[in-house]
Amino acid sequence: MKVNGVITRTIWPADDGRAVEIIDQTALPHAYRVLRLRGLDQVAQAIRGMRVRGAPLIGVTAAYGVALALSARADDASLAGAIATLAATRPTAVNLQWALARMQAALAPLPPALRAEAAWREAARIADEDVEQCRLIGQHGLSLFRELAGDSGRLRLMTHCNAGWLATVDHGTALAPVYAAFDAGLDVHVWVSETRPRNQGLLTAWEFRQHGVPHALIADNAAGLLLARGACQAVIVGADRIAANGDVANKIGTYLKALAASAAKVPFYVAAPRSTIDFACASGAAIPIEERDADELRVVHGADAAGCVGELRQVPLDVAVANPAFDVTPAALISGLITERGVCSASREGLLSLFPEMRDG
Amino acid sequence: MKVNGVITRTIWPADDGRAVEIIDQTALPHAYRVLRLRGLDQVAQAIRGMRVRGAPLIGVTAAYGVALALSARADDASLAGAIATLAATRPTAVNLQWALARMQAALAPLPPALRAEAAWREAARIADEDVEQCRLIGQHGLSLFRELAGDSGRLRLMTHCNAGWLATVDHGTALAPVYAAFDAGLDVHVWVSETRPRNQGLLTAWEFRQHGVPHALIADNAAGLLLARGACQAVIVGADRIAANGDVANKIGTYLKALAASAAKVPFYVAAPRSTIDFACASGAAIPIEERDADELRVVHGADAAGCVGELRQVPLDVAVANPAFDVTPAALISGLITERGVCSASREGLLSLFPEMRDG
Repeated sequence: MKVNGVITRTIWPADDGRAVEIIDQTALPHAYRVLRLRGLDQVAQAIRGMRVRGAPLIGVTAAYGVALALSARADDASLAGAIATLAATRPTAVNLQWALARMQAALAPLPPALRAEAAWREAARIADEDVEQCRLIGQHGLSLFRELAGDSGRLRLMTHCNAGWLATVDHGTALAPVYAAFDAGLDVHVWVSETRPRNQGLLTAWEFRQHGVPHALIADNAAGLLLARGACQAVIVGADRIAANGDVANKIGTYLKALAASAAKVPFYVAAPRSTIDFACASGAAIPIEERDADELRVVHGADAAGCVGELRQVPLDVAVANPAFDVTPAALISGLITERGVCSASREGLLSLFPEMRDG
Repeated sequence: MKVNGVITRTIWPADDGRAVEIIDQTALPHAYRVLRLRGLDQVAQAIRGMRVRGAPLIGVTAAYGVALALSARADDASLAGAIATLAATRPTAVNLQWALARMQAALAPLPPALRAEAAWREAARIADEDVEQCRLIGQHGLSLFRELAGDSGRLRLMTHCNAGWLATVDHGTALAPVYAAFDAGLDVHVWVSETRPRNQGLLTAWEFRQHGVPHALIADNAAGLLLARGACQAVIVGADRIAANGDVANKIGTYLKALAASAAKVPFYVAAPRSTIDFACASGAAIPIEERDADELRVVHGADAAGCVGELRQVPLDVAVANPAFDVTPAALISGLITERGVCSASREGLLSLFPEMRDG
């Protein structure tokens, strides 16, 4: 996609194979900043600290992390160590484990001298495939959206968190169909949910401003009222892990939107590539849910006399906090899964109809 | 209740009938500050700016606003003007209209010379009645909570926004039964929802710290996961307006919690006094929903490298925002209404069983 008119991805190799560069997503939407990551530890820290985030991008970043580690030392211990370090960064997005397993399978059989170059090649291949998969998700989603919009061409959507191009290498998952619909001339408007505690809705709003897609920011709490009042024809979100039965783990708050969509009889779509599907995970109950730092919740603002923004302050640090980063939306609340191979029901049968090879693991 | 060990209410007359004093709720939880309001305009501004908030307290504050206005000038025009000014401050909480109608009925028949003193008396009576009603809500809710807790005495609750003593003159609505249960020795723990965009959950957390009630702050988004995972035996909230059919308007996000409670088969209670019931309003669809300033949503934080709190910044001001302050929870999702006269079903029949006089308006 474009930033200030210049085409870019979210991650790319740099410095002749001694670094990767990323867009620092903790600086957005306030500043656009590129960070150079020079080794395994910096990559692991960038993932943990959410400088890169979004399930597909976490997977690709980890693949490049393996390549960086092997460029320093390519023996078996280094490969195993890199994979273990990266696997431990974040627990919920299965794309991370998927990308690491793919790197392991591609590299372990090779003699150490050939591994570094092969690792860079494999990471680049994973990145390129992610771009193409997201492009295809956009096309399949566009067909759905054309039907929804009908003759009026009007399309009122809602999304949660950021599953845009910033969450992938390019295009996005949930937002790929939105961009495709906008580019195809549909009259698109998107309700963008703030997504506390990390406010990734602001990343989505930033993406939309860059691309010109009409949108409005809402408090996460406002989703129910808007859906109940008919302000929205479909909800579309990404996923961090899809279980074999079609249950979906995604950013905390997704489940509440799915409940409200279901109550309002508004379709609820989940868009994700193959790498997000975990057929080894029987149902959502088996998906590990990350608990993040309490400090993410410890910032608020005081309002001034006019009810507007005043001083910015921290909550007293003695407030106990629970901060789960994901929740599970049961398959029954999901109208369809949009993948690079097409749209299927959120069910074992649906997933196998598109990905029959998953039957064998 | 007590603040730093000293018993206080949220509002009281001061300066020999030339002012009222309030706790400035926009300064909490960071600072405890008492504000003196010296006339009608200051009262109206305090309500609009949410220095006082919570449906019952808004009603009482408006009553004192009438008294202040009549202390300055007590003719018919002054009475009508004060009522019109105060009625326009906030649209959703019906306690405001209720209190103003009561002041009008008590004062209009009197000769102007007697009105000011009568107005202070009537406002004080409304305040005292609110205290007693909230105390009774606490006792009726306690009976429900004892049943829920059973022999273990364990009670895991969730609330939204602040319907504590800060939202009333004392005791609170939703939190009155929580305090009663805690004071009765039950093993209480409360999930306190942040309540974006104005973060009134921090007022609830502040109240609980003052009183010693165990609690944890959560993002609004986390309510679904906690309910689905069985972390909660009941949800209890207040109300800004209860329609004749039992539909409830309350702080934006309440409806999402009601959906999640219903899906998890967890009881969802609404606690409110008579003054919150609007029998002239047939259903939730007829309740006006306040749209508040977009700036309430325009503050976020950037996170530093460790994922912790870093710089505090404003969102670019060109973000379009929708900011409805309330939503409507359909009666079907409500397990019971807890009032000063007891607990009833959220329905016309339920309301009439406790308040038969409402049949005649």
